[in-house]
Amino acid sequence: MEACFSERVEALRALMRENAWDILILGAGDPHASEYPAPRWQQVKWVSGFTGEAGDLVITRDHAGLWTDTRFFIQARRQLEGSGIVLHKMRVPDQVPIPQWIASLEMENPVIAVDGLCQRVEAVRELKAAVPSAVIKAVPDILSPLWLDRPAIPSTPIITLGEDLAGESREARIHWLRKWMILHEMDAILLTALDEIAWLLNVRGSDVDYNPVVISYLLVTMDQVYWFVRKDAFLDPDGETQASFEELQSDEITLCDYDEAVMALSTFVGEDVSRIFVDPSTLNVHLRACLDECGYDVVEGPSPVPLRKAVKNSVEIEGMREAHLEDGLVMEQFLYWLESQAGRVNEWEAAAELGRLRASIPGYRGDSFETISAYGPSAALPHYVTPREGSALVESHGLYLVDSGGQFLFGTTDITRTVPMGPCTPLEREDYTLVLRGHIGLARAVFPQGTAGCQIDALAREPLWQAHRNFGHGTGHGVGFFLNVHEGPQDVRQNFNTQPLLPGMILSDEPGIYREGMHGIRHENLLLCRPVGDNEFGSWLGFETLTLCHFDTSCLELSLLTEAERSWLNAYNERVYRTLSPRLPAPVAAWLREKTRAV
Amino acid sequence: MEACFSERVEALRALMRENAWDILILGAGDPHASEYPAPRWQQVKWVSGFTGEAGDLVITRDHAGLWTDTRFFIQARRQLEGSGIVLHKMRVPDQVPIPQWIASLEMENPVIAVDGLCQRVEAVRELKAAVPSAVIKAVPDILSPLWLDRPAIPSTPIITLGEDLAGESREARIHWLRKWMILHEMDAILLTALDEIAWLLNVRGSDVDYNPVVISYLLVTMDQVYWFVRKDAFLDPDGETQASFEELQSDEITLCDYDEAVMALSTFVGEDVSRIFVDPSTLNVHLRACLDECGYDVVEGPSPVPLRKAVKNSVEIEGMREAHLEDGLVMEQFLYWLESQAGRVNEWEAAAELGRLRASIPGYRGDSFETISAYGPSAALPHYVTPREGSALVESHGLYLVDSGGQFLFGTTDITRTVPMGPCTPLEREDYTLVLRGHIGLARAVFPQGTAGCQIDALAREPLWQAHRNFGHGTGHGVGFFLNVHEGPQDVRQNFNTQPLLPGMILSDEPGIYREGMHGIRHENLLLCRPVGDNEFGSWLGFETLTLCHFDTSCLELSLLTEAERSWLNAYNERVYRTLSPRLPAPVAAWLREKTRAV
Repeated sequence: MEACFSERVEALRALMRENAWDILILGAGDPHASEYPAPRWQQVKWVSGFTGEAGDLVITRDHAGLWTDTRFFIQARRQLEGSGIVLHKMRVPDQVPIPQWIASLEMENPVIAVDGLCQRVEAVRELKAAVPSAVIKAVPDILSPLWLDRPAIPSTPIITLGEDLAGESREARIHWLRKWMILHEMDAILLTALDEIAWLLNVRGSDVDYNPVVISYLLVTMDQVYWFVRKDAFLDPDGETQASFEELQSDEITLCDYDEAVMALSTFVGEDVSRIFVDPSTLNVHLRACLDECGYDVVEGPSPVPLRKAVKNSVEIEGMREAHLEDGLVMEQFLYWLESQAGRVNEWEAAAELGRLRASIPGYRGDSFETISAYGPSAALPHYVTPREGSALVESHGLYLVDSGGQFLFGTTDITRTVPMGPCTPLEREDYTLVLRGHIGLARAVFPQGTAGCQIDALAREPLWQAHRNFGHGTGHGVGFFLNVHEGPQDVRQNFNTQPLLPGMILSDEPGIYREGMHGIRHENLLLCRPVGDNEFGSWLGFETLTLCHFDTSCLELSLLTEAERSWLNAYNERVYRTLSPRLPAPVAAWLREKTRAV
Repeated sequence: MEACFSERVEALRALMRENAWDILILGAGDPHASEYPAPRWQQVKWVSGFTGEAGDLVITRDHAGLWTDTRFFIQARRQLEGSGIVLHKMRVPDQVPIPQWIASLEMENPVIAVDGLCQRVEAVRELKAAVPSAVIKAVPDILSPLWLDRPAIPSTPIITLGEDLAGESREARIHWLRKWMILHEMDAILLTALDEIAWLLNVRGSDVDYNPVVISYLLVTMDQVYWFVRKDAFLDPDGETQASFEELQSDEITLCDYDEAVMALSTFVGEDVSRIFVDPSTLNVHLRACLDECGYDVVEGPSPVPLRKAVKNSVEIEGMREAHLEDGLVMEQFLYWLESQAGRVNEWEAAAELGRLRASIPGYRGDSFETISAYGPSAALPHYVTPREGSALVESHGLYLVDSGGQFLFGTTDITRTVPMGPCTPLEREDYTLVLRGHIGLARAVFPQGTAGCQIDALAREPLWQAHRNFGHGTGHGVGFFLNVHEGPQDVRQNFNTQPLLPGMILSDEPGIYREGMHGIRHENLLLCRPVGDNEFGSWLGFETLTLCHFDTSCLELSLLTEAERSWLNAYNERVYRTLSPRLPAPVAAWLREKTRAV
């Protein structure tokens, strides 16, 4: 069934006329500012046909535009064809973001409708700042009257993690949060980010692609915990969810219905609960307005949960080490297989084989993001989506890039390897070597306590910069423990994020070089930040590499490496061999022995 | 005459009682937030006897305290002895800044007196934020009733710079500032920082130690320029100042009296001048209050002058190159002389010899800061002040450090060399080499347009960090053109200063290692930021090293250098030899040939 997107835009215009809205904005988000919205909230896709992860739609009486960034230009141009929707480019020098674009229309008191559930408080504030005269109408489920076969809110089975896996009980975490509330004189805190809730309650689901979370809100007061979840909606053949609910209830978590969160919140306000803390970066405008209407004294700020969650405890760290051991065994078997398949499989088939291998790991709970399996020019798109039909053949020369990861009961992985499939050009070899130098620059960094990621990002870039090359994405993102593969508050990139890197934080290290129409290279391991000593100059931090999978040395330009870089590489490859080989099939172990010979 | 500082504190307490002030704060600044205050404004020194550059005094009814940082602890302890004044330590982990200390007294509505001329607007705001109930009295020249032999406001001869030296006329600069005013809808801008005024008017004086500036304020309106200067106070045997005044007047600059700035300002307000721009980081509270009283519509923000001033024009750059050529010739002659003096001169005598040599350069206008001449353990204090009497002997082993610079009509220099005076310990050699690796890391950096200093600071530190060593000061500061040796807005340090480095900016590159009781090492050159090419990855910037003086290779641990670092060092030393040797006396040139042999 081919939807006619231009008709949907027109239907929306009729709705706008009916309500006297001048402008309608539909964002890519869900009510929890999740990275991946469930199908129910893929509003932009339903209206426009555009399937990219990042894209916002603006409809006026005579214009319909999609705002997206460099990663999705080609895809957007193809998918928007015939819809009448115009592409507005972001992350380009002359970008005009939506608020500024609307301001440039110079309308008098424009009435702007947004989806109240899918717009974050912060986004609406930016709009209001750019167009002060705007009247903003936040309408929950704004598309529902038109979107007749709209998918339901997901309600996948819910499991709980015991202290043996999570390293800390939910009681302990709630106790910590209440101490924070006392310190900040809050009667309550409303958590809206799904990974924060999953972490605090030690629950996991699969309501959102790749993120093992449960669609819900969580209200914590000084003596109660209310979890707003779709408690009556679960198809639960195994009784897993029921058991989870019972465990939570025995821990004095009160289960309330997700759809009645607003009504329930209005009953709590009073003497016990007056001052309530919310994080406007993940709270939706509908709920924000309701809190005001209920009469709460609302205090906004960054939630304290992400920082605490980012610093892994010793059980989580052990679990992450185990996840990377299992993942490394799979990756080596995949690379062994792949070498024999040059010229015979396409990108999709390669990704499928890797997925099959990874799914065989006990405790596997899905991939941590959509696998990027890209040969040659495909890899030049850092966020290439491998098509199911007609993906490129992995040929027996040049470079193949695979970026993938898994969710396991005991951890989360994220790894990129760029693999020479046969002879490589001098430029491919040089780029491959420079990116590896960048990777090693961050991996072997030592830095004083208090250092933020942006202060060491250059260590991963300077080898590329020296050759006047660079990459347009961050070097590193935080990684959750059996949670979102992208998490804050720390990162390593060219920004001014002041969050210091702390022992126990896990980060990716993934520099790259991308050449349109030619090749793309990225080398990615996960790193664990840890103390490496104290002396009269201070306290020192460094990284332990968690990922266990060799880097191919056959296409290195050895003359470009410093002695220190070469030592690091040899020691790493040797560690990979020694750790994995006892558990690999004999032919794979023998092959890995050759692959990891010192250079 | 030994002043009795405890008596001065008691006299101040009497003044406080008389006026019903609970607390008195005296800061280290002058009315223009200059780095070095003229003797008239050395209030802390007069009251306490403390001569360090940074120190604030707080007097209550039963406490007198001096707040200063790590650099001055030893000096403060010695100088405060017997005064009854207590040292409060700053830049230490448990520091309590003055506002927080006063807040901790928990006084009800304390009346706090400050010197209205010597307190910046921003400092008083920080105080008010920490102690909201405080009543702050800003009294101009608060000490004058007690300080009977208080020095006068300086009025040293004033010179002007023509376009041949400055590269741009004052008309052009005023025209640029007025364009900025139009863009920001200002009727006037009041400049209060002395280097901003000197730059805009192309005037220089020597009212402040090491800073070739003139004590003054400058008001620029759309059709007038008023310079508030001590126009009647000059002893002017050469008529230099008179000629400068005439030149300025012929350029339609109106000269007004510095002491009558407040009165004059009250006469300008009206239809033509209503909206006035000031920079609260250099404006004093007295003048700020006067502007309000006059009825101006005062707009605050960062002055636009520092950024424009930081980007040198081609004439300034040529002048800076010439200054470094002349300075390099002097430095090499000094180092040649010093080598023969090991065990025979002390630190003070060495500094005097260098000063004598530098003063012989045509166009020399004084030093750009107080020379640090430090042997062995003395150099472990990054801001060591060489004592005139009893300074240490420069022995014939270990390391001697000299940090010095000059002001010339055509530029400003700042250089540090650490010189092995004979055999060095393995630790001295290792530290010397690591600091040089850090220096080279920044000097040879390449980075994309838009990069800020804090994003590349790690390039100068990582070689030290790898060995768990570090230094507690910034890596680089901006340098003026025949102006202040420290200027903003750019820097290279572990902060989050978002100012990108721009082509034409000049920065120091001065990593170090300091070991108490043992040695101190710093290697400093000045660098000019410049474009190094464009390609599909962006526009690239790098540095040209301006300083011309060899780095001694005899105490390097060569095995610690990478190939790239060794190449950089050899190329730099060769460039120094080739550039300087034709103009050096033959024995010095021959000596330099040996010193600059490739390693």
